[in-house]
Amino acid sequence: MGLFTKDIATMDDLFVHGLQDIYYAEQQILKSLPTMIDKASDASLKQGLKAHLAETETHVKRLEQVFQMHGTKPKGVDCPAIDGIIEEAEEVAGDVADKEVLDAAIISAAQAVEHYEMTRYGTLMAWAKQLGRSDCASVLAQTLEEEKAADRKLTQIAESKVNMKAAS
Amino acid sequence: MGLFTKDIATMDDLFVHGLQDIYYAEQQILKSLPTMIDKASDASLKQGLKAHLAETETHVKRLEQVFQMHGTKPKGVDCPAIDGIIEEAEEVAGDVADKEVLDAAIISAAQAVEHYEMTRYGTLMAWAKQLGRSDCASVLAQTLEEEKAADRKLTQIAESKVNMKAAS
Repeated sequence: MGLFTKDIATMDDLFVHGLQDIYYAEQQILKSLPTMIDKASDASLKQGLKAHLAETETHVKRLEQVFQMHGTKPKGVDCPAIDGIIEEAEEVAGDVADKEVLDAAIISAAQAVEHYEMTRYGTLMAWAKQLGRSDCASVLAQTLEEEKAADRKLTQIAESKVNMKAAS
Repeated sequence: MGLFTKDIATMDDLFVHGLQDIYYAEQQILKSLPTMIDKASDASLKQGLKAHLAETETHVKRLEQVFQMHGTKPKGVDCPAIDGIIEEAEEVAGDVADKEVLDAAIISAAQAVEHYEMTRYGTLMAWAKQLGRSDCASVLAQTLEEEKAADRKLTQIAESKVNMKAAS
């Protein structure tokens, strides 16, 4: 976005900017998930991340659907937040020697990504409703529920075995 | 962290790295909140952010307490995630012309910060428990509850009036 212009004049502009932000973020997540899957050792963690990679492809398509419903061409904008979250995930993963500790670190990084998505989709849903676009809100709600479920699944994998193996 | 060394060998190292990450993050949040408070127009939003600034000071002290309980000197490490989240908050805020739309954007940015903290404190609590440090876990739990409450309060401010005013 411009440093010397005020590009966002209305709530609708802010909504579109939010869509562009998460559209870029989902694409960065699509790029980074295969590395996380490669680095994970625990079978259910690897499987959970693979399932989430497939879901993420659907999330990108759903965003394109929301752009279309809104009458706007799908486009991403730079999103320093997701760039930072992914950069940190890669840095920490590169710093962990032990495979089982690395699994715990990967879950932590993946949950940071999920939480970023949860906050953005939650906000976009609320804005869509306020703008009278319950059609857009209901598509965004589907993705929000999947992000929340992915986060719960990661907690379950961590607490059922990964953290125990990492600490032993 | 080193690019050529594996600094994190154990789950305990990972826990300490996590503490250092959120210790840095809380300090960056302390620096950025006054700007958000200045830019906010809605009285209850301004008030809510001010209350959270005071809470954030307590969160820093609680982290110092956890470091001490653990027997480690309080120290921060670079946290590209929070840097990115704050950079994006400032970029978007700088792009919004309308005061009421800006309030909606500030709530969105503040909730992204809260979600980052929620995921980190949730993970640290789980790790502390796994490491047999329920004393550390219970201090971290207090902050986690306050971050969740701050997030709920922001949703309530957004949904009760800010979004409506922004969209009108």
